Amino acid sequence: MRPKLVLFGDSITEGSFMEGGWGAALANQFSRTADVVLRGYSGYNTRWARLVVERAMDGVCVGGASPKAVTVFFGANDACLPDRGGASQHVPILEYQDNLRSICSFLKEQWPTTIIILITPPPIDEDGRLKNPYGNDNSGLPERTNEFAGAYAKACIALAKESDLPVIDIWSKMQSFPGWEKSFLSDGLHFTALGNRILFEEVVLKLKEKGISLETIPIDLPLFSDIDTNDPHKSLGK
Amino acid sequence: MRPKLVLFGDSITEGSFMEGGWGAALANQFSRTADVVLRGYSGYNTRWARLVVERAMDGVCVGGASPKAVTVFFGANDACLPDRGGASQHVPILEYQDNLRSICSFLKEQWPTTIIILITPPPIDEDGRLKNPYGNDNSGLPERTNEFAGAYAKACIALAKESDLPVIDIWSKMQSFPGWEKSFLSDGLHFTALGNRILFEEVVLKLKEKGISLETIPIDLPLFSDIDTNDPHKSLGK
Repeated sequence: MRPKLVLFGDSITEGSFMEGGWGAALANQFSRTADVVLRGYSGYNTRWARLVVERAMDGVCVGGASPKAVTVFFGANDACLPDRGGASQHVPILEYQDNLRSICSFLKEQWPTTIIILITPPPIDEDGRLKNPYGNDNSGLPERTNEFAGAYAKACIALAKESDLPVIDIWSKMQSFPGWEKSFLSDGLHFTALGNRILFEEVVLKLKEKGISLETIPIDLPLFSDIDTNDPHKSLGK
Repeated sequence: MRPKLVLFGDSITEGSFMEGGWGAALANQFSRTADVVLRGYSGYNTRWARLVVERAMDGVCVGGASPKAVTVFFGANDACLPDRGGASQHVPILEYQDNLRSICSFLKEQWPTTIIILITPPPIDEDGRLKNPYGNDNSGLPERTNEFAGAYAKACIALAKESDLPVIDIWSKMQSFPGWEKSFLSDGLHFTALGNRILFEEVVLKLKEKGISLETIPIDLPLFSDIDTNDPHKSLGK
């Protein structure tokens, strides 16, 4: 049975199989070795994710099996400012951290051997957000700021440290490239194909650090080049 | 537990999560409702697929569950000419048909309620194949021809009729568009993003004809817009 890689998150996860998406790229990377399972819930914050994690994971693995890894990628919605157009999605930072803790504890309890990878919220391009007005706010101010998202990113990293979990700091990673605002973010928040590529590479790297790679997961059936075409039963017989 | 859509085939299936791929587009289409499971085996013909189908499907569904649908998309390799560079992959047409019959019987027996969708081999752009020499053949002739692939497509359609299975005639469909050779095929055989789009649309249409669509598969958790954000327990409580 093929191992599973589960992607749990908000719209940046739900949309990860769009053209150029990081989820699709992962599925392509592991096309012969692992199943990528999509559990993305657009608009969700950690308060809601915490309420549904058990049902979201229901049936992902059965018969006592565990996924190889689960990415937990929330916070972009929690980090909506409490007094702007995204207020209904806002979650205070300490609650965000506690919700993440609860989600990871649930996963750890259910699947003790599974690698849980936290991903921080992405950086915010406020100019991009202003061009994509959100909610019913006519203040002319963005509903998210990069600074506020950064505080949630730090809280996510602190929780990862506390819980001894691997974390991808996509907030910092993206900002280490000049021009990140437009090259990685399509609307100041969601990812362009290039932004998706950055996250894909970070996830592949983190999985590899944790022992999950094309080198370590056995292929389920022989490559064409390894089949004895004169005697396929020899290569492919049970 | 989310329903599953399984993609079983050769390289055009294995590569279906590359950028613009038809598998990724399906996973995106059903991102909140169904899991797309990739079982693509580059280079495989039906002779080898028949030998491995049981193992390829092992663990895809457990505990008595069945996939909603399985696409069976082979023949591009069977239809290599027997005396050219792809000879080791060639399978005679009657054996191709018999292998397909065996694969579908296995699936039907294991999962009587699953919709099995046959897909014919794609058309061949011989000029494209000549520009991508294959195997150890220096004849200057392509290892596949469109006419030969068409015979396999007809055999596939005949089997679908005999077995009362839905079939996507991608060989004919693509050729109904002018300029199909270059716009749908990147190397005379594999699909461009536009070619992937055509197949994606055909699969969505065929699934819909068989009662599988966004309208008929229930969403597992509420959309953000349906959550009472003042009382999330009401919308999201168990």
